[in-house]
Amino acid sequence: MMSLRVALAQINPCVGDLASNLNKIVNAIGQARALGADMVVFPEMVLTGYPPEDLLLKPDFIHAAQEALMRVAAHTVGLTAVVGGVHVEGDLYNGAAVFHNGRLATVYHKHFLPNYGVFDENRYFQSGKENFIFDRDGVLFGVSVCEDIWYADGPPLEQALMDGAQVLINISASPWQMGKSRVRERMFSTRAMDARAYVVYCNLVGGQDELIFDGQSLVCDPFGELLRRGPAFEEAVFVVDLQMQEPFRARLHDPRGRQRGMMEGPSLSRIVLEPVAAVQRRELDFVLVKQEEDPSIAKLYQALVLGTRDYVRKSGFKKVVIGLSGGVDSALTALLAVEALGAENVVGVAMPSRFSSEHSLKDAAGLAVQLAIELLTIPIEGTFQAFLEMLEPVFAGRAFDLAEENLQSRIRGTLLMALSNKFGWLVLTTGNKSEVSVGYSTLYGDSAGGFAVIKDVPKQLVYQLCRYGNAKFGREVIGVSILTKAPSAELRFDQKDSDSLPDYDLLEAILFHYVERSASVEQIIQLGYAEETVRRVIGLVDRNEYKRRQNPPGIKVTSRAFGKDWRLPIVNRYRWGKE
Amino acid sequence: MMSLRVALAQINPCVGDLASNLNKIVNAIGQARALGADMVVFPEMVLTGYPPEDLLLKPDFIHAAQEALMRVAAHTVGLTAVVGGVHVEGDLYNGAAVFHNGRLATVYHKHFLPNYGVFDENRYFQSGKENFIFDRDGVLFGVSVCEDIWYADGPPLEQALMDGAQVLINISASPWQMGKSRVRERMFSTRAMDARAYVVYCNLVGGQDELIFDGQSLVCDPFGELLRRGPAFEEAVFVVDLQMQEPFRARLHDPRGRQRGMMEGPSLSRIVLEPVAAVQRRELDFVLVKQEEDPSIAKLYQALVLGTRDYVRKSGFKKVVIGLSGGVDSALTALLAVEALGAENVVGVAMPSRFSSEHSLKDAAGLAVQLAIELLTIPIEGTFQAFLEMLEPVFAGRAFDLAEENLQSRIRGTLLMALSNKFGWLVLTTGNKSEVSVGYSTLYGDSAGGFAVIKDVPKQLVYQLCRYGNAKFGREVIGVSILTKAPSAELRFDQKDSDSLPDYDLLEAILFHYVERSASVEQIIQLGYAEETVRRVIGLVDRNEYKRRQNPPGIKVTSRAFGKDWRLPIVNRYRWGKE
Repeated sequence: MMSLRVALAQINPCVGDLASNLNKIVNAIGQARALGADMVVFPEMVLTGYPPEDLLLKPDFIHAAQEALMRVAAHTVGLTAVVGGVHVEGDLYNGAAVFHNGRLATVYHKHFLPNYGVFDENRYFQSGKENFIFDRDGVLFGVSVCEDIWYADGPPLEQALMDGAQVLINISASPWQMGKSRVRERMFSTRAMDARAYVVYCNLVGGQDELIFDGQSLVCDPFGELLRRGPAFEEAVFVVDLQMQEPFRARLHDPRGRQRGMMEGPSLSRIVLEPVAAVQRRELDFVLVKQEEDPSIAKLYQALVLGTRDYVRKSGFKKVVIGLSGGVDSALTALLAVEALGAENVVGVAMPSRFSSEHSLKDAAGLAVQLAIELLTIPIEGTFQAFLEMLEPVFAGRAFDLAEENLQSRIRGTLLMALSNKFGWLVLTTGNKSEVSVGYSTLYGDSAGGFAVIKDVPKQLVYQLCRYGNAKFGREVIGVSILTKAPSAELRFDQKDSDSLPDYDLLEAILFHYVERSASVEQIIQLGYAEETVRRVIGLVDRNEYKRRQNPPGIKVTSRAFGKDWRLPIVNRYRWGKE
Repeated sequence: MMSLRVALAQINPCVGDLASNLNKIVNAIGQARALGADMVVFPEMVLTGYPPEDLLLKPDFIHAAQEALMRVAAHTVGLTAVVGGVHVEGDLYNGAAVFHNGRLATVYHKHFLPNYGVFDENRYFQSGKENFIFDRDGVLFGVSVCEDIWYADGPPLEQALMDGAQVLINISASPWQMGKSRVRERMFSTRAMDARAYVVYCNLVGGQDELIFDGQSLVCDPFGELLRRGPAFEEAVFVVDLQMQEPFRARLHDPRGRQRGMMEGPSLSRIVLEPVAAVQRRELDFVLVKQEEDPSIAKLYQALVLGTRDYVRKSGFKKVVIGLSGGVDSALTALLAVEALGAENVVGVAMPSRFSSEHSLKDAAGLAVQLAIELLTIPIEGTFQAFLEMLEPVFAGRAFDLAEENLQSRIRGTLLMALSNKFGWLVLTTGNKSEVSVGYSTLYGDSAGGFAVIKDVPKQLVYQLCRYGNAKFGREVIGVSILTKAPSAELRFDQKDSDSLPDYDLLEAILFHYVERSASVEQIIQLGYAEETVRRVIGLVDRNEYKRRQNPPGIKVTSRAFGKDWRLPIVNRYRWGKE
């Protein structure tokens, strides 16, 4: 076999929906066949969706998932398919099943189980111990699962360096965050070059609770050059032709294999697949792809749109409702919701109080017109007054303070939830990461809702995303007034965010070092930030863990979001070196 | 040395509070010394509190914690102390430091890291690889940490069977749940008998977020008999005399050691501690202790009191506020709060609506009198009316439904939060596990608050706890009317829980199998429950994950609570075999 056509099927399954996921897989095999592929590769755990979390503690789920995986076999007549799913062999494994010509050939078990950041795989899986290659018409393949290829000397490198595998297939469910694609491409190129083998990496697509999987599947050639990249944040089935003289050519020119004794003969077990009739097809053009650009706002925007669409749709909702304050956070949330769901599925609600400025209502109305979404205007003054009267006997003689500020926010939260209950709309909340970090929000108030679209997006990126959206639409969907006014919660007269918080550029810099980098107070001060400010900001982060714990889920886009990758105790008196 | 006196110091540290925890340790060493002890044993991670979670991703925390641990050395002149804390030696380990006569002798690193249920130790620690014994005046000791002794062939058994250790010290942070003490005692007895060695198990005390550590430290003799048990849910420093001829006597009578070749000579490394002056003391009486009784309501009651006290106090609150509906859940929560914090620190609030029955208000008032707590009565009718008017233009023509029901609950939640904000009281919520399981609650309504005292207590146990409380007080603190009326949310006319849910005995049985045992629908039906009921209940559990995710933390008392040991995705379409 001189060339081999591999299809990469980066599809978007739904966690737990075994029947639909199986159906998607079968359809993608059909597409691959139509594209003349010899082989089709799917992502890790594509059959269950990822991560299934504690569904993996249910024996009935595991058995149903394994049974569904085995049903793929019958659809592979005439080709080879690598499909991710759970596999029981005494213990439970994260497996890559290799189907060939209508039958299961073998299952590879993931060796390295990630248990850091958002991952908990040690909670569920046994580590695979066996490694092997398979032989299809004289071409040698290795298969591995995600984390396995992140180790410089992991199973895929063994497959190539010990046993001469020419194609290293890596199936993954690798969550996206800003800057991740660049790191991934760099790593895969290096692995391909080190192994002098093709690397075929197929990644999942879609949003699952707080995670986004971006696709962007890759093929690198044996010199480490990027041959093909799948689209970002979209499903796709695409093919690439691998030239089987290339690994040999690379190995003749690169002495590292001979030094390591690769040519000495096989040491891993080898599975020989039966011959199948050659596929009739036209050769593809050969082009190299440019390396991934720097983290871009466009990608972030796409990720937020996908995350919103998938959470809403996969949860079974059609329409969403958003409180529109006239500020930048709710404007961006509404814009992203319109992109994700269509304007007809987004309802805005303006809920002015005695403290709302005139421009707030005007800006909210202007936004609704620009986005062509329905706007409800419901003043809360009467209800606020009723609450104050109800509380009067208890609050008598006490000054207006945080209690009354939060009351307004909670009336709005309750109002949105009433609309949700009455009409079946999902409430999207609008808090950004800077606010969530320091607890600048009202629990059961503005944080009340089903999904928090921008909870992992720092305030300054919120502005950049708005400007990107305007440029994309070619007009000021989000008006100048919204983008230029000073941020305010408008819960008392003349309130500004800057009354309570440092400027956002300063705040975000400190938060970045503390939240994403786990830097100590001393280290942050040494970077040149004022001690008083650093201590104040970090004190706010530490004290507001209880609020974050009751917040709705939202989309992870940074290296450390307030979700599964942030597990701080609520009761926590650690202050040494801080106060 | 013919007898050795060991002190067990089961103390209650606070996560992160290194200075106070160190201080507690130093005080306990003083008490041990006063009791004539040769050796004092502390729980696992006593210096940091357990679990510190992602504090263990902060280098500054780790260094401060290790430095604090090393400060214990200076306080150990004349005795030996085994103290749990973090230890860095290249990697990060969960360590048991052995201090002797003013110096650090060695640090044992935990081998087996639990990463299931509520545990995530693979996220943080490297596994220890080394095992050793130490020699104090000719007596051989092994040290291990928690999980290590749960393995039948773990490090402690190696210490005894390979190297003849006569005393196996196991330091633990073992969370309590109903029935756990019995399982633990059985296991420790078996280990002692298998090793023909004393087992000295010292466990943490106190509440930390959702977990309760119960103390109940144990000493088993080399025949597996229980020699001493520390108090439950209370701090204590107590001593026991170990007779050094006992392991030898056991080994002469039990041939298993000879079969395994234990007497063949040492194979683990051995650390010899320097001699110190003999301690002057009077011998203790020798008594055997009865095995732990069955899971008892008294223990559960104590656990809930400790959990409430520790969460409230360790979070820095003095007073709590509780909505009193006249029902059994809020009555029990108030009773437990009074036990935990004193009546003067508990405020009840009755918030009648147009749907509240007369007995509700009367029962709430009667309870407040019985408990001698302050009662505020704040009718919500005016505010409810204001909300209905505010929503009238949007809701026009639609029937009264869940939206209006939830509105009342959210008004009450908002009202309690306003009191919390104004007066600095922590809101305790009152939902029980049966309700939480099926989502029979209003998000941001009755579930709004800082801590959910009985969220892991099924409804029928709620009644038992009330009766236990009445018996303990010797009068009907919780009145007959509260205990006998049909449960109702009173959010519409004549509403009863039984309108929406199966009877509680049936509901709880199904929930037990599904939630605690991960049984499938088919299995539960096979146990004899009606299919329609099983499917309805399980459908409710599955659909309400989003609500539970935004609930406040509460005390874990069953084998599987809705907290760290329940990690289901929110977006989850798994229904095969169910619908």
